[in-house]
Order: sequence, then C-alpha cells, then structure tokens
Amino acid sequence: MPEAKIYPLVIIGAGPAGLAASIYASRYGVEHIIIGELLGGLISETHLIDNYPGIEDVSGFEFSQKLAHHAQKYGAEIRPVRVKNIQKTDAGFKLEIEDNKNIESSAILLATGTKHRKLNIPGEVKFSGKGVSYCATCDGFFYKNKTVAVVGGNDSAAGAAVYLSEICEKVFLIYRKSKLRAENFWIKLVEENPKIEVIYDTNILEILGAEKLQKVKLDKKYKNAETLDIQGLFIEAGSVPNLDFAADLKLEIDDDGYIKIKAGAATSVSGVWAAGDITDGSDKFRQVVTACAEGAIAARSISNYLKK
Amino acid sequence: MPEAKIYPLVIIGAGPAGLAASIYASRYGVEHIIIGELLGGLISETHLIDNYPGIEDVSGFEFSQKLAHHAQKYGAEIRPVRVKNIQKTDAGFKLEIEDNKNIESSAILLATGTKHRKLNIPGEVKFSGKGVSYCATCDGFFYKNKTVAVVGGNDSAAGAAVYLSEICEKVFLIYRKSKLRAENFWIKLVEENPKIEVIYDTNILEILGAEKLQKVKLDKKYKNAETLDIQGLFIEAGSVPNLDFAADLKLEIDDDGYIKIKAGAATSVSGVWAAGDITDGSDKFRQVVTACAEGAIAARSISNYLKK
Repeated sequence: MPEAKIYPLVIIGAGPAGLAASIYASRYGVEHIIIGELLGGLISETHLIDNYPGIEDVSGFEFSQKLAHHAQKYGAEIRPVRVKNIQKTDAGFKLEIEDNKNIESSAILLATGTKHRKLNIPGEVKFSGKGVSYCATCDGFFYKNKTVAVVGGNDSAAGAAVYLSEICEKVFLIYRKSKLRAENFWIKLVEENPKIEVIYDTNILEILGAEKLQKVKLDKKYKNAETLDIQGLFIEAGSVPNLDFAADLKLEIDDDGYIKIKAGAATSVSGVWAAGDITDGSDKFRQVVTACAEGAIAARSISNYLKK
Repeated sequence: MPEAKIYPLVIIGAGPAGLAASIYASRYGVEHIIIGELLGGLISETHLIDNYPGIEDVSGFEFSQKLAHHAQKYGAEIRPVRVKNIQKTDAGFKLEIEDNKNIESSAILLATGTKHRKLNIPGEVKFSGKGVSYCATCDGFFYKNKTVAVVGGNDSAAGAAVYLSEICEKVFLIYRKSKLRAENFWIKLVEENPKIEVIYDTNILEILGAEKLQKVKLDKKYKNAETLDIQGLFIEAGSVPNLDFAADLKLEIDDDGYIKIKAGAATSVSGVWAAGDITDGSDKFRQVVTACAEGAIAARSISNYLKK
C-alpha cells in the first residue's frame, strides 16, 4: 500500500476567499488542494455583483467562473465535495471527506463562508422548495408574473427585491424595522420601483398553504388583513457561519459564531488559518473584496509557516 | 461671492485604495471628489498584474482604467492634481491644491500609497519594466527559470530572494554591507537555499542592456568580473510613504513612516481615514486586493461617521 500523500495545505471552501488564497498560494509555490462543495460559494447565487472593484455588472455565476479559472490557471485542483470532519494529529490534520478519499495536510485554511439564516417559523421547512426560497437568483424565474415577498432589510434583501421586480408582477419587501439597513444605492432602487412595496415594522409568524405556499401570516395587520397572499417567499434573513465540520478543532469564535482571526489571518489553533465571511476579520465587513484580501493575507502567512 | 462648497469627503489618491473607496462611497450615497495625480497610482506602472483575483493578465494601465471607469460610472469626479497641504479647521479640513482650486471637506481619506526608494543609478529608469522591478511578488513569475538579482538586505529583500528562488534558476542577493539586516528567520532561509548566492559589500553602479536588462556593473569584482549577467533585477531598497503633504495633520505613524490605522481604517486624527499602501493595515501586505479591501472598509466607516 503506498504511503498516503500529505498536502502542505488544504483550502476548504471554493468561494472568493478560498480561490484568492489559492492564487496567492500557487504564486508562493505552496502545493495545495481546494475542497469546496459550491464553486464560487454563496456569491455564485447572486444575480448581479457591482461592488468588486474593477469588474462591473457581473453575475455571481460568471464571477465565480472567473475566480475559479484564475486559480486553475496556476494548477489548482478543486474537488467539489464536502469535508465531514477535521482531526488534529501530531503531524498536522486528518480530513474526513464525503467521498471517502480522506486527506492529510500540514496546514488548513478554512474558507467555507456562511449559509442562509432560517426564520425558524411554522411552515418554513414544509414549504421549502414549494414557495419558500433562499435564493432569488436561483429560483426567481419560477415566479414569473406572480406575487412574491422578500423578508429582510439588508443589501441582499433589497437586491433580491429589485431582481424579482424584473420577473414578478408584484414584490413585497417585509422588514421587522422601520428603516431598511441596506446601502443607499439599494434603498433608492427599491423606493423608485413601482412594483416593490415595503411593509415595515412587520414579522412573518407563519407560512400557510396546501400543496404549495399560498399566504403568510403577519404579526401586524397590513391593509386590514392579518395574512398576505403570495406565491413565493424569499428569505434574506442574514447568514450563519459554516463551521460544523470543524467543531473538533475547538477554534476560538466570537459571540456570533464567527472564527476569530489575528495577524496573518491565523486562528487560535496552530496550523489553522481562516479567511472570508466565516471570520471576524475586515471589521466584519463581509464583502467579496475583503474575502479575497483575507485569502491573500492568509496564503502569505501559511507560506511563511510552511518554510519553517 | 458664492459660499464655498464643503465636500462631505475628499479622497486623496487615485490608486486602487482610493478608487475602491470611491465605488463604495458612491453606493453609500456619500458625495465626494478624488484628488489624485496618477490615475491607478503606482500599479499603473506595472507591466502585468496577475494576482488580483478575477482579473487575469492585465496591464497596470488597463487595470487602472477599469478601476477608474468603475468609480466614474457612479459619478466620481477625479481631479488629476496634487494636494499641497491640509489644514484642520473647526468644521473639518482645508486642502490646498496645486491648481489653486482649494477645497474644504468634512472627512478625508488618505490613499496616496508609496513611492519606491530608488537606487538612483544609470539605467534604472531606462530598464524599469524591462528587467528592473520593484516588486518580486508582482513580477517574479515572469522570470521563471531565469537568473535574477535582488538588491537590498532587509526582510523584503531576503523574502524576495527566497520567493524568487522557487521560480527562478538562480538568485543573487546583492547587499552593500557585510551582514544582512533581515530577521534571522529570513537570513537562515537565504543561507540554506542552494539557489541563492549572496554578494556582500557590493553596490550596483550601473544597469546595462539593449532592449532589456542584460547585466549590472558592480563596484567590486565578483568572481573576477566587474559585471554580473542577469535577466531581472529586483530593487528592494524599501518604499517611502507619500505623506509629506499631510504633515500638518500630525498623524500617528509607525517606525517606517506608514500611517497607523485602527478599526474602520481610521487614523489617530478624527475625520481622517487612510487606506492602501500608505498604512500599516492588512499586516503590511501591500497588494492591490488588500488596498481595495481597505478602501471599501474605510468608505463604510466614513459613511457611518457622516450620518452622525
């Protein structure tokens, strides 16, 4: 039996942070493999990106392809599977992979970003995929000329509402506060859009329907009714870090569950780095460009570590 | 006489940090003007950039145009002049501009980057970009399997030599003193590396070649020759922050003269932010992508400040 290969570096996550780290790692001559379920990460689901400096008006899918192509040009291998568990060993780390082709490595970069936060209300699980969606770009097309609602008040929520207004007949934007917390750029687009109606100071209590979603129950009457008839509900309630698989590493995390990073994007555990949305770095300003920067910083730090 | 306009924000510097900040500021609805002598900043001089994630093989000039176009699409005004002086006033800041069209503002973002410390020897200007480089990370890859030299004795010089040894066939490290002043960590790596040869107590007098750099003339014979044949010369004589014009602000700087930044890319002076190569941010890893990220972070912080 041949001896198992030990990778100097395994990058977990194939979004902007992981792919940027791969580009820098390759340029530093650090051999590595990328294990990432979703090429491009969550950003691949975004309808339109226009705040990554230098690349205008690009779809999340196309942007993800650009990043992956850039990384692969330097020889990066991307394996589209899930890491199930990581164990620290004397020599480094053992990664248990979904496809059973387990891996050993000297260093690890965690760049698995976040997943959509759920509302955790009755009907959410039952109608998931039957009216309830967490990705306007992915599912919006199924609601052509229909009436839908978006829940949330951040950039993603406003962006989803604007995107859906191009497809649907009517879009409600339901937010629990009295003012959207999105960028002015998005607020303006929402307010100027005749198809979008914002319902402020309101929460959704329950999702109702038969085979498919038919209406949502609100905690405050809207136009004298406690329910709102819609065919689709897009939940944009924020994100939670994707970190379950790394629980055994016992990394230091902040109050919201994000990995604390220090100089060089190093974590509290020697040999483990973290970059992108999964961290508390960049003043928690979770943008594509800050994720890429953290990936670059981590790659340099890992390269220096591996030389020692 | 009409009352002088007070800009909410003036961004000084039109390189990656300043232009990225402009894109984000526009999206936040923060009115601003960019004052920058050189569109794209120092990076505009680089013949090829290939480490900005998502944009492959782009000239520094073209990259600068992309960034500027992106910023201008959101309405950014870029005035290609030099700021001569900044004075703090009760209401904010007074900027004395080269063209005498002085400006007042509530907030300032300093993004004027650095300039390379030059050797100031014959041939240096002529072969810049044709064999002479000031950035191993940026340009090293183009010297794959070639013979190059690095000039300098600090961490950057040693780091550059080690980095280049992974790409090039042979690396000379030329230093004017008899002992490198880099950290032991780097010195050890240099000394143990079979591809690196250190030439001590030696200065380069002249850079020679035809279309491209071919050799350098030394002030002391090396292996009985007064010249050394190389294809690339990496000048690591340090960088100097572009900060003279802001001396009156009395910003806190680090030992090397870079502006110290804290959360939100804020400086020690209220109302003044700094981003990009001019700062000690991003672990002093001065890359295009880290500059852009700092610009974005600063813009968000400034937007919040101006709302107060």
